[in-house]
Amino acid sequence: MEGYEEVFVDGLYRIQNGRDYYYAVLLRKHDDDKVLPVFIGAPEAMAIQMALNNIRFKRPLTHDLLVSVLDSLGVSVSKVTIDAVIEGIYTATLVLKDENTNKEKWYIDARPSDSIVIALKTNSPIYVSMKLENHFVPKEIFLEDFEE
Amino acid sequence: MEGYEEVFVDGLYRIQNGRDYYYAVLLRKHDDDKVLPVFIGAPEAMAIQMALNNIRFKRPLTHDLLVSVLDSLGVSVSKVTIDAVIEGIYTATLVLKDENTNKEKWYIDARPSDSIVIALKTNSPIYVSMKLENHFVPKEIFLEDFEE
Repeated sequence: MEGYEEVFVDGLYRIQNGRDYYYAVLLRKHDDDKVLPVFIGAPEAMAIQMALNNIRFKRPLTHDLLVSVLDSLGVSVSKVTIDAVIEGIYTATLVLKDENTNKEKWYIDARPSDSIVIALKTNSPIYVSMKLENHFVPKEIFLEDFEE
Repeated sequence: MEGYEEVFVDGLYRIQNGRDYYYAVLLRKHDDDKVLPVFIGAPEAMAIQMALNNIRFKRPLTHDLLVSVLDSLGVSVSKVTIDAVIEGIYTATLVLKDENTNKEKWYIDARPSDSIVIALKTNSPIYVSMKLENHFVPKEIFLEDFEE
């Protein structure tokens, strides 16, 4: 995918700041140790953690419902892309394809957190725009800055 | 809808139990004061609260993403139904219709909490199966049992 680089979920970190907790999911490139830290809320962190560990509840959670809707409609997730940063917030796109034609057809504006959960649940690739290259940091630097 | 009765969201209650909080959304029939209390988690309670108050964030939350996916795919929510109770947990169905034919076509298993958020966000009706008639309680009784 031109102008984009594939990443995978390296891990999820909980960061303490006084009495508050923040969560960051680290997206890592395949060929080096640089990571893109994406800060997310607690419910999204829980959803990512459960997706990473393949934990499923008896009843469908919200992202399971979304995947189930897509399945029913004959639509599948082609990929998710992290495209830009606006006022410190990353934007993402859920790229959907028609299962009949196998062609990408729908591009849905989404948060990175939801996109990552859905990518994990559907085994879809995650891409980051090369415009965000300078937001990647060496993993050791991130870990030093935010001790778990 | 045969065997079902329409309800609306009467309110959302936070219930304290020692140091823990529980949330219940009350579904009320149009013609009497009986309510069906549906216990839900904190993230779902927050989503329902925001939907009730028409609060929208800059970025789409998970249920907004689901509604946005449906819009893009030419599918709309016809209604949501609360159908049964299994081991103390209510089950629900998201009923979707094809916008081209205006016919109900897809029936998706869901939790009541997600279904209610989506009904509120899409102005769709909520129905409860008459099999659940004996789960309705007078609102005063519910409020006495669980003081806010």
